[in-house]
Amino acid sequence: MVRAGVAFLTEKGFATTGLDEILQSVKVPKGSFYHYFESKEAFGVELIKNYAVYFAELLDSNYLNENLPPLERIAAFMEEAKNNMARYEFRRGCLVGNLGQEMAVIPDAFRQLLIETLHDWQSRTAACLKLAQKEKQISAELDCDMVAASFWIGWEGAVLRAKLERSGAPIDIYATHFLNGIHK
Amino acid sequence: MVRAGVAFLTEKGFATTGLDEILQSVKVPKGSFYHYFESKEAFGVELIKNYAVYFAELLDSNYLNENLPPLERIAAFMEEAKNNMARYEFRRGCLVGNLGQEMAVIPDAFRQLLIETLHDWQSRTAACLKLAQKEKQISAELDCDMVAASFWIGWEGAVLRAKLERSGAPIDIYATHFLNGIHK
Repeated sequence: MVRAGVAFLTEKGFATTGLDEILQSVKVPKGSFYHYFESKEAFGVELIKNYAVYFAELLDSNYLNENLPPLERIAAFMEEAKNNMARYEFRRGCLVGNLGQEMAVIPDAFRQLLIETLHDWQSRTAACLKLAQKEKQISAELDCDMVAASFWIGWEGAVLRAKLERSGAPIDIYATHFLNGIHK
Repeated sequence: MVRAGVAFLTEKGFATTGLDEILQSVKVPKGSFYHYFESKEAFGVELIKNYAVYFAELLDSNYLNENLPPLERIAAFMEEAKNNMARYEFRRGCLVGNLGQEMAVIPDAFRQLLIETLHDWQSRTAACLKLAQKEKQISAELDCDMVAASFWIGWEGAVLRAKLERSGAPIDIYATHFLNGIHK
């Protein structure tokens, strides 16, 4: 049910996805749904939390990979995320970015959760950048927390554009420009 | 009617905005609407075209401002766009970014139009960057078309994030990082 929910939300968004639609796709009766969740909103909160953890693991599997220099780990994360999008023909975006775009029509409870999620991903990226700084891949003058913040701000734009163009090219352009901008 | 349409679409998006809602807000009867537009989709196309022109003018008013060096013109555009968002308490985003995010649920006819619009804005930005290159504000080695592409890819992320955080801070962070990354 959670997997189906994530699929619908990354593709269509929250407001335009009906609960019935999700439940039908996994053949779960509505009664069973309310056994687990109080409402569509509570289900949404669970989906965000779930996605946050899934994505943090994807980040860590790259950022903590000691076989690569730190900057190359960030590049590898971007490549993996792009390939994941390609697998769904760039129809699915980032759950967090999608919901962020829906601010006016989604429950307010989602807002803080989305911001926290982005901050969590950001801090993981900052840690990897600090490592790159230690290994002198990037200048000692760079503020890694700010660079990581900027990375995530722009990243959601790259995912959005990849979805619009149904192509990985926007992610490649963003990745190249991001890495060029900080590389020594 | 077009103004009301843009307001709804930048705030709520296309799929979740009902035609009735827009028409009621400007007290236009449905009959009159169909006198001007064939469908909600045709109206949407008109809104995108309208927004594309409005925004191109906003870009040009900054990019062609000969009182500032080229890079400062780009900075001024970002500042103006941020202030425009602040005027609506960061509830409204970019029409093009919003619709881009809705890919799965909006008419396919919008897609090409959105891509063309972004390319138009991109080429205006590239022209300003080439001027910056001529005036030696940025390195002669930079590929201005690629930098402009990257700028717009990330920019939509910055607008999205400003909307999510209801704050101009993400735009400031993005602007700083973008300009630092290319400044000589």
